[in-house]
Amino acid sequence: MFVPTLTAHIWMDDMTELRDEAAGAGRRRARGGGGAARRAARTARRIEAARFIERRIPNFEILDEEALEIIERNAETVLEEIGVNFVDNPAALERWRAAGADIDGERVRIPRGLARQLCATAPGSFVQRARNPERDVTIGGRNLVLAPVYGPPFVRCNEKGRRYATIEDFRNFVKLGYMSRWVHHSGGTLCEPTDVPVNKRHLDMLLAHMTLSDKPFMGSVTEPSRAEDSVRMCEILFGKPEGELDTVMTSLININSPLTFDATMMGALEVYARANQACIISPFIVGGAMAPVSVAGTLTQVLAEVLAGVAYSQLIRPGAPVIFGAFVTSIDMNSGAPTFGTPEASKILFGAGQLARRLGLPFRSGGGLCGSKLPDAQAAYETANTLNAALLGGVNFMLHACGWLEGGLVASYEKFVLDADQLGVLHSLAEGVDMSEGAQAMDAIREVGPGGHYLGCAHTQANFQTAFWRTEVLDYKPFETWAEEGARDSAALAEARWKRMLAEYEAPAIDPATREALEAYVAQRKASEPDSFT
Amino acid sequence: MFVPTLTAHIWMDDMTELRDEAAGAGRRRARGGGGAARRAARTARRIEAARFIERRIPNFEILDEEALEIIERNAETVLEEIGVNFVDNPAALERWRAAGADIDGERVRIPRGLARQLCATAPGSFVQRARNPERDVTIGGRNLVLAPVYGPPFVRCNEKGRRYATIEDFRNFVKLGYMSRWVHHSGGTLCEPTDVPVNKRHLDMLLAHMTLSDKPFMGSVTEPSRAEDSVRMCEILFGKPEGELDTVMTSLININSPLTFDATMMGALEVYARANQACIISPFIVGGAMAPVSVAGTLTQVLAEVLAGVAYSQLIRPGAPVIFGAFVTSIDMNSGAPTFGTPEASKILFGAGQLARRLGLPFRSGGGLCGSKLPDAQAAYETANTLNAALLGGVNFMLHACGWLEGGLVASYEKFVLDADQLGVLHSLAEGVDMSEGAQAMDAIREVGPGGHYLGCAHTQANFQTAFWRTEVLDYKPFETWAEEGARDSAALAEARWKRMLAEYEAPAIDPATREALEAYVAQRKASEPDSFT
Repeated sequence: MFVPTLTAHIWMDDMTELRDEAAGAGRRRARGGGGAARRAARTARRIEAARFIERRIPNFEILDEEALEIIERNAETVLEEIGVNFVDNPAALERWRAAGADIDGERVRIPRGLARQLCATAPGSFVQRARNPERDVTIGGRNLVLAPVYGPPFVRCNEKGRRYATIEDFRNFVKLGYMSRWVHHSGGTLCEPTDVPVNKRHLDMLLAHMTLSDKPFMGSVTEPSRAEDSVRMCEILFGKPEGELDTVMTSLININSPLTFDATMMGALEVYARANQACIISPFIVGGAMAPVSVAGTLTQVLAEVLAGVAYSQLIRPGAPVIFGAFVTSIDMNSGAPTFGTPEASKILFGAGQLARRLGLPFRSGGGLCGSKLPDAQAAYETANTLNAALLGGVNFMLHACGWLEGGLVASYEKFVLDADQLGVLHSLAEGVDMSEGAQAMDAIREVGPGGHYLGCAHTQANFQTAFWRTEVLDYKPFETWAEEGARDSAALAEARWKRMLAEYEAPAIDPATREALEAYVAQRKASEPDSFT
Repeated sequence: MFVPTLTAHIWMDDMTELRDEAAGAGRRRARGGGGAARRAARTARRIEAARFIERRIPNFEILDEEALEIIERNAETVLEEIGVNFVDNPAALERWRAAGADIDGERVRIPRGLARQLCATAPGSFVQRARNPERDVTIGGRNLVLAPVYGPPFVRCNEKGRRYATIEDFRNFVKLGYMSRWVHHSGGTLCEPTDVPVNKRHLDMLLAHMTLSDKPFMGSVTEPSRAEDSVRMCEILFGKPEGELDTVMTSLININSPLTFDATMMGALEVYARANQACIISPFIVGGAMAPVSVAGTLTQVLAEVLAGVAYSQLIRPGAPVIFGAFVTSIDMNSGAPTFGTPEASKILFGAGQLARRLGLPFRSGGGLCGSKLPDAQAAYETANTLNAALLGGVNFMLHACGWLEGGLVASYEKFVLDADQLGVLHSLAEGVDMSEGAQAMDAIREVGPGGHYLGCAHTQANFQTAFWRTEVLDYKPFETWAEEGARDSAALAEARWKRMLAEYEAPAIDPATREALEAYVAQRKASEPDSFT
């Protein structure tokens, strides 16, 4: 029989006492004292941000050596026998021919081993700089960098329901990402600002990332010229002459699976690689549609596509930073809709992570993916399945870590803060188990002994404030308290949270001259061509 | 940019075609034809039940060899220096003394190595028989057996809200467990039937498990005499003379942490061990209250407690089947309430699994644990975090796999079917990656080539029906369809599902004489003592 009700009140009394003692100790140490110190603490908390995750736990490996070798061999066979298409891109074909590939129309057949050999110049990890150096991230190795949802044309919130996204929504999500402690990266197209012309929205999006946040961000990929704009604006933001940027953007280059590299995405990749900016080279696969219905077949195709794409980036500029991407899900055989948080997706994630590590490349996969239309239980099961797989599967860069709803069609305000809270779980889990003498707690076990309790013991007093991950949005209150407070579900609690965050938002400081120069660039570029909405 | 909207309609058309073709093939193969065959298929489906999970994936190991050795050494130190209390149980003290322990009042100090040595006679895995042999489960090794929620005094459903549980609720949950394809075990106290006297409810609960389901179940532990009743009723159910039962029950023996073994639980353990019935020997720990606030300290105490408890079971009967249990969570430092789905709980689960495997014992931990008051996003995040950790952490027997709500105070109808659906995800993930030549799908990749799609290819046609896990409750429909159908959230979808299941329920066949004998036993035992509600 489960007994928490009986003991909960005892714990609560004890915990109140403990908390008061700890608060008292804090007050005694504070020099400024009283209201000023509390205000300072509140101000400091607003921009509190965790460092990217450095895993101290092993990766989960679902494939054995034999399976990995089969997939690697098959991927080479795909490249050699079937090849890949580089569409509308004669220069790319020429580069491939010069590198030793066999060119037949737009088809590029890559001799066994060549692509892997070309990939060798790509770095195993790289630093993406932010305008606030404290927010720099290292992508690769045992690290995990978390970035919000990318790409939805719609937004949803409890109050107003589902609607087309606007630039105001976009700015709101930049602000929420900036204020979310466990989110390391401002992301890219947090939602599509559909009220801004298609050919100009990248300018407004970049300006928002650059001025409303000080976290690292992504560049535009929808036209090579927009990638150029992204680079120019970064040169202004970071005060660098043309060609001298550090790596300050990580951008998303989707492969048009199966085995097709289109000119738009390759054009953006070329711009970024030349400018030493990072790209995620990412097959975009719904298993059963853009790849075989089997996990092993899908992994083979993913590896072949990434090998070709990464190799191509190194033909543009050896050493250009890239990420082994994989956006893979499967289809629901009832509706044909993409599904998320499925076991097949987890297996592919685990396997792709292993293939990326063997290739010596940072690995990207999705984060809080779900198919649900609402931030409900379905959304959370699917999201948690994906987040857990991504942490244990060794992902280095997690896009869509928070805010994704309805198969990526919707950016959800409520889900953004719910997911962002769960990202704290990943941080803590990644720390592994502290085996220090203090953590072994033998003195506490001796002190308490059989039948006692640990709430008041010295070890608990010394450690309780930092021992456990703490939610900032979920509700643990007793039923009666929760009912008196309105019996709110997670979505209602989340609504209160994001509204409070936006109300409390303060922009990070930026040099006014830099800001003006960025605004001038945007104005000039907008004036240089007519609006387009297609 | 994410593109499912554009392609969804294409997929849907293709999928409809595929489905129709497959259905056509199915119809051609069916001999009975038409309505009769469809009715037969529906009847068969009602009692479809998956075999217990046999993992083909590795376990996730969070502790390295050095950490494991430290914890094992410390646990022996706890047993030797601090010891454990066996309360109100002189016979237990005498057994321990005879085995070589040092007895001081009720304190039992166990020389280093003795408990582990005594544990050696416990089997590494065992079969728990069900009255339907197809439902037998093997607990241990690489297997995972899933059982529903245990212990809540309340139930909740969408329609009627939260209320005290009754025997009708209990019977409903037995029926739902029986009909849930991914649930292998009928469990025990699915909820407390508070409308039945405390001293008689075990009889009604056992009768329900025995007659309304044919899956294996748990016995009563709240008094040694109720454990005796459980054994007697099993002798009737399985038609065995006294003392000749196979292992047909797995019952839950909680340790009163820290380090205390009370007479009620030990009395039940003694009954079951003598009758060769299995027990889960399970520290019941809210970290920070019944164990140190640190993971390493908690694992040390858990191991010490399990070593003492399992050793004691082997003093009663060497070879008695037991499970290394761990129910561990932590407290919320704001409210003192227990929390679930936290990173600390996952770390302890991973570590305890490793310790159990080194001890050569089956391992039990919690399943769908959550603290939320509603089957909402919070409940699902917390549940999924726990389910994923339990699968990867090598759990062999998962109690509370479905239906648990509000820290175990509530059994939720909606969450029962939502969780039970997610258990299918675990089944599929546990299968690992099929590396057969067919699954490698090289012919499919060759057939489709760059720029094609896989929906119509031979490999997809041959495999799409079994390739992916399929939900029976979540919604993947396009937004418009979903909106037209009432914009239902997960809880509403789940409500429709459990009501339909109960409406369609048919009891498994049972020999009428057996049933009468069970009912007569229950009636006689109920008549033998006055009702008690305390």
